[in-house]
Amino acid sequence: MQQELNEFISNNRELIERELKRHLVQLDIPARLKDSMIYSAEAGGKRLRPVILMASFNTYNNDMNRVLASAVALELIHTYSLIHDDLPAMDDDDLRRGLPTNHKKFDEATAILAGDALLTYSFELVTNDPLLTDRQKVQITQLLSEASGPQGMVAGQILDMEAEEKDATLKELETIHTLKTGELFRFAIRAGAYLGGAKDDQIRHLDQFAHFLGLIFQVQDDILDVTGDPDIIGKPVGSDEGNEKTTYVKLLGLNGAIEKKNEYVSKAKAALREASAEDSHLMSLTDYFSTREH
Amino acid sequence: MQQELNEFISNNRELIERELKRHLVQLDIPARLKDSMIYSAEAGGKRLRPVILMASFNTYNNDMNRVLASAVALELIHTYSLIHDDLPAMDDDDLRRGLPTNHKKFDEATAILAGDALLTYSFELVTNDPLLTDRQKVQITQLLSEASGPQGMVAGQILDMEAEEKDATLKELETIHTLKTGELFRFAIRAGAYLGGAKDDQIRHLDQFAHFLGLIFQVQDDILDVTGDPDIIGKPVGSDEGNEKTTYVKLLGLNGAIEKKNEYVSKAKAALREASAEDSHLMSLTDYFSTREH
Repeated sequence: MQQELNEFISNNRELIERELKRHLVQLDIPARLKDSMIYSAEAGGKRLRPVILMASFNTYNNDMNRVLASAVALELIHTYSLIHDDLPAMDDDDLRRGLPTNHKKFDEATAILAGDALLTYSFELVTNDPLLTDRQKVQITQLLSEASGPQGMVAGQILDMEAEEKDATLKELETIHTLKTGELFRFAIRAGAYLGGAKDDQIRHLDQFAHFLGLIFQVQDDILDVTGDPDIIGKPVGSDEGNEKTTYVKLLGLNGAIEKKNEYVSKAKAALREASAEDSHLMSLTDYFSTREH
Repeated sequence: MQQELNEFISNNRELIERELKRHLVQLDIPARLKDSMIYSAEAGGKRLRPVILMASFNTYNNDMNRVLASAVALELIHTYSLIHDDLPAMDDDDLRRGLPTNHKKFDEATAILAGDALLTYSFELVTNDPLLTDRQKVQITQLLSEASGPQGMVAGQILDMEAEEKDATLKELETIHTLKTGELFRFAIRAGAYLGGAKDDQIRHLDQFAHFLGLIFQVQDDILDVTGDPDIIGKPVGSDEGNEKTTYVKLLGLNGAIEKKNEYVSKAKAALREASAEDSHLMSLTDYFSTREH
């Protein structure tokens, strides 16, 4: 199962990276803008969001080409959010995954514009995809803009900023993560299932699944910050402790956080069974999320 | 003719402002984000872009409700671009139209996120418009993302930044303005005509018209910087001269710039006649653009 999942992840990651590059390289735009967009898009990561989209699609459909553009668009939105998040006015980070952040490699103005360009281009990509019907293009654009806009990811970022100035409760923490991280995971799962041809009630159960998957991702992040290997997670252990950030571990203790995670894992898997998706890669992805070491 | 145009402008400006506010006010999002989005969206201006979209639509169709969402989306994109343009890393402006810029009123992080939110929300607005068909939603989303993204407005902003560090030629100056300002005017005219039901060859001629209208707007901006009344244009006369910015007046002299503008006006009107739009508000808008005092 784990073996199969690893293969699925690495094959589709490769596919995504190839497509991502192909779309950006063919753009006839000013060199500085293009370099800066490609720099961050190639700076990598695990491509978790598009891989989840493809796993969700694959639960109902095998013709993977039909989701490639939507998966790339999702990764572009994630990339733009990281570029803007790293800016001096936001998290002020110099490094991301061991490489200089976009504004360090280029400059702040270029980083702002590269983010704007990636965000805008993601909608162009979806609406220009020759493999989708107009109905599908509209539906994906709606889901993607809702997930990443003022009611979704951007709301999470504002709340996250505000939370740094006060002690957040567990409920507030969940709201922040659900918006900031969860909404793009939720898009991945809903968009994949929708394009794959899932029924409405299956999509409703998957929506529940997505909610818990996002939370599992976040609890594990907080746990790794305390227990992780700094060489593997790519940042010093305990970096959350040094700042005022509220985490699951601070609120519940390490054991409490692990219990919480296991509770989320049970709920996520129950939702998958309701969606008749217990044999899909989404099942093993849940374990992958809850046991990942980076 | 001028009387009629003024009425058209002021009626539709009111309509746009009402709709703009209605859409933003109903958003259930964090207060700080909402306040900051509404602040800049209400900070006004002449609403030229949506008014042009409506004039272009009105050339072929009278049912103005059908373009309202697209017109509002366009104004939201324009608003986002001003917020990001004013940021310290970009133009570093403290005031816009006599009011504190978004990052001065709120803070830089909020301004970046408000811009991102307005940009993303504009696509949500178009794809949620109940008056458009799926085909129309896809077409408008395509045109809008192309006009405002890396091949359009954002490309213009990068080139504009680069041009500040060197002497631009007339050709380079035109490319910058065509992208930075012209692409949104072009969207206004194409989207309006398309939704209004114009024929393909009429849209092609209007595309030409849009190109010249954008240039007229820009030459007049440069002329006003030298000859304008500071109380009317809202900034000191000669402010371009103080910095290294290349302008039409610097390249061609004041008389040369006026001649160039008149040349563009003739070409714009010729294109309108080819599109059988000589009796539309677009004709008087051309004069309005070339003689405006602010």
